[in-house]
Amino acid sequence: MEPVSLSAMLACFTEHWQPKKIAGLNDYDIKIVKVLGEFTWHTHPETDEFFLVISGELTIQLRTGNVLLGPGELFVVPRGTEHCPQASAETAVMLIEPRGVVNTGDAGGHLTAELEDLTGSGLDR
Amino acid sequence: MEPVSLSAMLACFTEHWQPKKIAGLNDYDIKIVKVLGEFTWHTHPETDEFFLVISGELTIQLRTGNVLLGPGELFVVPRGTEHCPQASAETAVMLIEPRGVVNTGDAGGHLTAELEDLTGSGLDR
Repeated sequence: MEPVSLSAMLACFTEHWQPKKIAGLNDYDIKIVKVLGEFTWHTHPETDEFFLVISGELTIQLRTGNVLLGPGELFVVPRGTEHCPQASAETAVMLIEPRGVVNTGDAGGHLTAELEDLTGSGLDR
Repeated sequence: MEPVSLSAMLACFTEHWQPKKIAGLNDYDIKIVKVLGEFTWHTHPETDEFFLVISGELTIQLRTGNVLLGPGELFVVPRGTEHCPQASAETAVMLIEPRGVVNTGDAGGHLTAELEDLTGSGLDR
């Protein structure tokens, strides 16, 4: 029954493109990630994906154009929509997706990351 | 395909305890609300409830103690857990719940609010 501080959680790691679970909401994971550079084009055929920029600036490239997000700005990539996140400087993002969604979606590849669990219990990963 | 700015959305209204939908994520609603004073003790038997403080300070009273949240701090009230939000000064909060959840849960009463939809289309309320 402890609050979760985004800044305290972000201070726990330095690596990029490796989301960390910070809370659970029913069968969804609340995650944070630090990003820098370009990710990989991918699609989540089965789910929308929520992005909220905490610090920095995130470009979500879509095939139809780019969505630019600064701190306090959010965007939901609709399911089945190919996208590729990109950040020119280090950017911190909160992500929300159903539990078990893989970060690279249908694309796979070396950027595929296992979700690390930073929640207190470590039991509800 | 436009980003959603929390501050721009918060500038759209002044009333307290009346959540507004700002985005959808699958069958969940992303909502914002301004709060001041004490809400009502209530329970959501069927769902967890996500709170992220954007500005101000929120106390989530639980029967087992209080959770105090400042800006950038979040808490998930587990399903079936009686709670009562309280804020001594105006506080802005982002909420996430499955679509259709009523703000007063099982308690009802005069604070029960219909969800207003601030999303662009107004179609996916």
